[in-house]
Parts: sequence; structure tokens; C-alpha cells
Amino acid sequence: MISIEYNNLGEVKSTEMFKVKYDYLLKKINDALSTIITEKDSPENIIYKAMNYSLMAGGKRLRPVLLLAVSEMLDIDLEEVMPYACALEMIHTYSLIHDDLPAMDNDDYRRGVLTNHKVFGEATAILAGDALLNYAFEHMLDCLMDKSRNKSYSLEDGVKAVSYIAKAAGVNGMIGGQVVDIESEGKEITLEQLEYIHKHKTGALIKASVMVPAILFSLDEDKKNALERYSSSIGLAFQVKDDILDAEGDFKLLGKSTGKDASSGKSTFVSMYGLENSREILNKLIKDAVESLQIFGEKAFFLKNLAAYIAERKN
Amino acid sequence: MISIEYNNLGEVKSTEMFKVKYDYLLKKINDALSTIITEKDSPENIIYKAMNYSLMAGGKRLRPVLLLAVSEMLDIDLEEVMPYACALEMIHTYSLIHDDLPAMDNDDYRRGVLTNHKVFGEATAILAGDALLNYAFEHMLDCLMDKSRNKSYSLEDGVKAVSYIAKAAGVNGMIGGQVVDIESEGKEITLEQLEYIHKHKTGALIKASVMVPAILFSLDEDKKNALERYSSSIGLAFQVKDDILDAEGDFKLLGKSTGKDASSGKSTFVSMYGLENSREILNKLIKDAVESLQIFGEKAFFLKNLAAYIAERKN
Repeated sequence: MISIEYNNLGEVKSTEMFKVKYDYLLKKINDALSTIITEKDSPENIIYKAMNYSLMAGGKRLRPVLLLAVSEMLDIDLEEVMPYACALEMIHTYSLIHDDLPAMDNDDYRRGVLTNHKVFGEATAILAGDALLNYAFEHMLDCLMDKSRNKSYSLEDGVKAVSYIAKAAGVNGMIGGQVVDIESEGKEITLEQLEYIHKHKTGALIKASVMVPAILFSLDEDKKNALERYSSSIGLAFQVKDDILDAEGDFKLLGKSTGKDASSGKSTFVSMYGLENSREILNKLIKDAVESLQIFGEKAFFLKNLAAYIAERKN
Repeated sequence: MISIEYNNLGEVKSTEMFKVKYDYLLKKINDALSTIITEKDSPENIIYKAMNYSLMAGGKRLRPVLLLAVSEMLDIDLEEVMPYACALEMIHTYSLIHDDLPAMDNDDYRRGVLTNHKVFGEATAILAGDALLNYAFEHMLDCLMDKSRNKSYSLEDGVKAVSYIAKAAGVNGMIGGQVVDIESEGKEITLEQLEYIHKHKTGALIKASVMVPAILFSLDEDKKNALERYSSSIGLAFQVKDDILDAEGDFKLLGKSTGKDASSGKSTFVSMYGLENSREILNKLIKDAVESLQIFGEKAFFLKNLAAYIAERKN
């Protein structure tokens, strides 16, 4: 168990309040996600079941929670940003389905249940992943064009936000990181490469989650910079913590196989720096994330706690 | 060899003129595609090579050719619609990469060269497919926001076009058809199911190729309906022809393994109707496609010939 002293920053309120808030946002997202994929056109088509199976398999919903939390801090109506929050979770979920495939990480379990290809077969799992990525764009564009939806941002800013998410998910973002991660398996890599992988593989979507509200509602530069710094720190922290969990993990809590990184010869923060140093890096990143939010004052309460939560989570 | 008598429609000009025009549009598209994926961010990342390998492996470029040909008929500047033409080809290419995977059709050759996973490995091929789908959206959105690009359509109509393509590619379009196709392998299927597969798997993207110019430049209803009828007919014709080619095909011309449908127990037009009846269906579809374009007069010359080309192609 990592012990981080946030209290000396003098701003973090009770973890109880944080938990209540997290659960509130989590429920909002799960409610929205549960109605997003409807089988209207061809109810007998298995693809809808395969998509919903992974999308509704639970999980922390870190990306949409971040997006909603930042929006709330900026006094933005959560309903207005919900399509982007859902899209980010769909993109994250598709990346997990493809990541779990036999040709990739070959995982049988994810979030404590069988992986998509274990239930629906490889071919349908590949297509369910494709479909979720595609649907993320369908959904954002649908909502953007829907005149019955209340929108206090311009069409132009909406397009900017969709484009930002597309870039974060793509070859210069998440996918770029995944490829380098795969290619470097079993090889010695440099610290620079390790940071490239993490910045892109997990960092890009986390950054998009934090930045989308700022893009939609044209936040001023100082605050934008603060959010960028926050997102970089928690993005990297999230991955360092993942590496730590993998090294010391417990299947029951993690819901997936552990110790795989080491056995597959994957370079991680733990393999490069050792466990103790990795924990120290993690602490520094969280401290930086918390400090970067000073500009938002009291309203940053939840996001500061979220940084701590990333470091302390057990799965 | 199928013999179709178009001359009795009294409108089809020389096939030579058609060929020159096709090659002209093909070159335009290949030029645009060849510069689309740049390795600016991380030149050492293999993903760019994997994406470009399949994107530049040649092929008929039927979808972008259709989009440009319809645009030309409607007197639209081709540069304005090029991003959508390229996006459709990227989406088509990603679907082929995933389709060829061992877990799907398990093909070693495509367009006469080794399939993506045979060259780059399965993991990278899966990600290259994902990346091309994602990049199709990145590219369209980038061009839509680029104020230095000449655009005589509104931002709203641009978003409508991107959304139309997204739906055509997605779970209620191409992917929906692919899943039913896979699920029905080795099973008896109804004619209705066969038509569902074709309408979605190939028809949806072909329809989008024809309709995008009409959406961008708000064509009147009569002409829109004519284009819809044309696209439905050639979309289905394309698939019927594919089934015929597969049944009688020649590896050298097709650039991929043939007779696979029969050996894998896949239901096709040929397996359901026989070869002769399939040819008759094809002829009727082409005739309908040609007739549907009467409203455009002489200007429809190329698109009418394109319908005939679909029926007569040898690969």
C-alpha cells in the first residue's frame, strides 16, 4: 500500500466526499452508456450484444469521469458534454477488446469477466472493436447535429472537440503508443521509448478527457495550460501505477492476469526503475497534478482527489 | 464472359473514353492517397508503413472514383470532395485488412500482394486497420476545419457528410453486414439474409460514395432519389459480380484466392441461384442503374459506363 501525504497540501477534503461524488458521476455515465447502443435496425445481429458486453462490463470509467469532473469544475452542464464522455469510453473499450485478442496480449479475462473474443469468438470480437470505434464517431456527430439537444457551444467548437478526440485515439496518439508497445516486447528499450509508449498509449485519451471541456467552451490559456499539466501528470501516473499493480498485483482485485509484463519480457517502469523508485515517481507525479490545479481554487477538490485515487487504486 | 447490350440504350459512348476518364480519376485519387499518411510525429513507428502498405497496394478505387465521378457530373470542384473520397478508400482498406486476418477470412494475398498481417504480423495488422479507420475521421475533420481550403459548402453540410460516412461504415452499415456474413458461414441462409449482408457489407459504402456529393451540395429530391437508386443497383451488382468471379475466377486476375466461398460453405448468389441466373440478375441490376441516371442526361455518360464496367470487370 502506497502512502501519500496529501493532507500537507491543506486542500484535500474527506475521501468520503470524493467517493460519493465518484459514484454519482459513475452512475451518470453508466446510465448514458447503457442506452447508447440500440439494436433497432437488426435485433438478431450478434454485433450489438458483443459491443454492449464489453462496454457494460464495468470498470472505473476514468476517462468519462475525468471529462465530467472537469466540466463540473468549469460550471458546464454535464448533459452537453455527455456524448464526448461516452465516446471516450467506447474508444477505450474497443482498444481493450483488440488488446486482449490472441494476436495481441492474449488475455482471457478483463474487468473480472471473460474477454470479448472468449465469449463471441475472435472474428466477432475484432468487428465489435471496430464497431465501437466507429460508433464513437457516429454518436458524437449525431449529437452534434441534433437540434433538439441543448448546446451552448458552437458547431465549430464541437467539430474541434471531435477532431481532438480523433487525434488522441489515432496513429499519433493511442494507436501509435500501442504499436511501439507491441514492437518493443522482449527488447531492451530506452526510457525515452517507454515514455513515448505511455504518453501515447494511455496518456493521449486521458489528456483528451481533460481537455475536451476546455476546447468546447474556449477556456483561457492559463487555465488550459493548468489542465494540460494536470492531464500529463495523471496520465503518466496512471501508467506507472498500472506497472506497479502488475508487479505486485492480485488477480481478484485486478480482474485480469498479473505478472504478465515480467513474464512476457515487457519493459515497464518497475523493470526499469525498480518498485521503490517507481512509487517515488508516482508520488511526484501526483503531487504535480495536485499543484497544477491551484488556479481553480476550491472547485478543484474532486480532481485533486482523483489524482490521489489514481495512485492509491487497487485495480 | 458476360455480354451486356448497353448500346440499345443509345447513350453509351465508346469504352475508350470511359477508360481514359477512369484512369484520370484513379490517378487523382492515388496522388491524393499517397501523401495523406505522413510519418511526421515518429518516423521510426512501423504503423505508418503498415497503413501505407495496404492503402497504396492498388485496387480499383471504386468508391472514391464513384464519389469523384458523381461530383463531376454535378459540376462540383473535385478538390472540395477529395477528403471524403480518400476517407472512403481508407475505410474500405481497413475493412480488407481486418477481413483478411486469420480469425476472419485467413487470406494470404490481396490485390496480388501479401496481406497486411503476412508482412507486418497480426498484431500490427489489427492496429493498422484500426488506425486507417480512425485516420479517415481525422482526415475529414482536419479538412473540414482547415480554413485555407476552399469550401463552397457549409460546415453543417460537411458534418452531415462525415456523419453519413460514419453510419455507412458502422454497425448499421458495413460492419453489420460483415458480422452477419461471418455468422452465417456454413449455415443455410435465406435470400433475405443474403441481401441484408450485401446491402450492408458492400452496399453501404458504395451508397455513401454516391450520396456524399449530393449531401454536401444539397441536391434536389428527384436527383437524390435517382442517385440512391443508382447506388443500390450498382452496390448489389458489385457483390453479385464478386460472387460470379469467385465461382469462375482466376487467381492471376483476381489477385486473391478463388473458390473460397464454395469451399468455406458460404452462401452466395451463385450458390443460391446458380451461375446463369446470377448473370441475369446482374444484367437487370446494371440496366436499372443505367436507367436511373436518365434525369442527368448526357452528363451521366461516365457513371452509366461505370455500371457496365462493374458487370464486366475481371477482378
